[in-house]
Amino acid sequence: MAHIQDRPIGVFDSGIGGLTVAAALRRRLPGEEIIYLGDTARVPYGTKSSRTVNRYALECALFLFNRGVKMIVVACNTVSAVALPRLKSVLKVPMIGVIEPGVAAGLKASKAGRIGVIGTPSTIASGEYQRLLLQNDPGIQVSAKACPLLVPMAEEGRLKGPVVDLALNEYLGPLRRQKIDTLILGCTHYPLFKEAIGGVLGEGITLVDSAEAVAAEVEGVLLRESLLRTYGPGAMLCCVTDVPRQFGRIGRTFFGEGLGRVHRVTLGEGF
Amino acid sequence: MAHIQDRPIGVFDSGIGGLTVAAALRRRLPGEEIIYLGDTARVPYGTKSSRTVNRYALECALFLFNRGVKMIVVACNTVSAVALPRLKSVLKVPMIGVIEPGVAAGLKASKAGRIGVIGTPSTIASGEYQRLLLQNDPGIQVSAKACPLLVPMAEEGRLKGPVVDLALNEYLGPLRRQKIDTLILGCTHYPLFKEAIGGVLGEGITLVDSAEAVAAEVEGVLLRESLLRTYGPGAMLCCVTDVPRQFGRIGRTFFGEGLGRVHRVTLGEGF
Repeated sequence: MAHIQDRPIGVFDSGIGGLTVAAALRRRLPGEEIIYLGDTARVPYGTKSSRTVNRYALECALFLFNRGVKMIVVACNTVSAVALPRLKSVLKVPMIGVIEPGVAAGLKASKAGRIGVIGTPSTIASGEYQRLLLQNDPGIQVSAKACPLLVPMAEEGRLKGPVVDLALNEYLGPLRRQKIDTLILGCTHYPLFKEAIGGVLGEGITLVDSAEAVAAEVEGVLLRESLLRTYGPGAMLCCVTDVPRQFGRIGRTFFGEGLGRVHRVTLGEGF
Repeated sequence: MAHIQDRPIGVFDSGIGGLTVAAALRRRLPGEEIIYLGDTARVPYGTKSSRTVNRYALECALFLFNRGVKMIVVACNTVSAVALPRLKSVLKVPMIGVIEPGVAAGLKASKAGRIGVIGTPSTIASGEYQRLLLQNDPGIQVSAKACPLLVPMAEEGRLKGPVVDLALNEYLGPLRRQKIDTLILGCTHYPLFKEAIGGVLGEGITLVDSAEAVAAEVEGVLLRESLLRTYGPGAMLCCVTDVPRQFGRIGRTFFGEGLGRVHRVTLGEGF
């Protein structure tokens, strides 16, 4: 390729949840080429150890790096929470995770300074959201809650209905009692539940979708580094380590449009 | 080791669900040594493609084979449904899955010949339970239902309560309307929900726990092949590919006692 601007943005996730981030990138930066990688053969990461997540994350990032991406977006909250510093220390390519943009957007959205965060057990246990929120504004009140059933529900396409509402009521009840005015959706799967969450929380609570915040941050990085591709249209190449049952149907739910041809790839090939 | 009888029985599962089978083996055959392998770094298998499940299953079986086991128990319904014939064709060691014993036990338990089966989406979609039940008795009525949320619920230790009951009501409603008299629990995780399932189904429906049926089948195979170890007591060695968060607590729920030292191992080393 003649210009570095023409190189693709690499986006990876443990599975297909990160397609919500890829979709936000497509909307905001339609000129950009994207390579999406979902490690569907080993999904989920959120229940695995930090050591294993670090190994998997490095293999994903290397796969994208080896394909000459101009930037890497870690579209997985678990990887962002437990492996991002190590990834950044290894690979010479601009890289962002999803937590810092979500934190910035949450702080901007909150009027009353009472912010809730929901995520996978690993993400919430890492304390990264809580730490970064309070580091940026020690005066706010932060309430965090792990929602372990939401990812499996999203992956089977169950986005509303009585079981979803009952689980959400249980998860969000403590946050509602803390009178949060803003809720950060700290998992790439959760934007799919926006409607159900809104129904359970009622009006007056702002939902912060980190996918949109990440896309804005990517634009900022590309602008600063003179890496923006302003002509287009860009295409997206979708790679997965396994093509699971119902991949097309569920992928469309996450991405908002058809994924075209999906490529099955193998990780672990090193530099 | 002097005698082949002294060799361990190998038991493997995608994760720790198969510990319910290992526990049934320990109760029925306390003299036997057991090596348990849980592929916790890649769990779950039930949502992955048949190609990927076959590859993972062969790596698990080879790991046990290389340690000189006298028999392999595939304590995973998904592997039993999609990979058992291939495994049996490759490795020269007695091997059983969990589906045939469950089918035999279900047929034996049913008085009215109206049998329900629940399992993961992959297991139910494979049609193996339905096919084997009808092959053994074409006169019965078989109703099958996939229960995708039960595995994630079990893995977080959520075994009862309103969310569980609501999901079970949704899953089991169609089976109850078919007036089943017997329900086969076609997933190694499901015995943990026996109480909740009993509460939702009411009295008069027999629950068939395939773990018990598998242990009986193992005893039969070992007797026929003169491989039974009658003195003891045997010990269990627990190996996993990842030691995830809260492994000890959740492992104890599945196994019914402490697991002792858990070994972290790497798969894929071949013959």
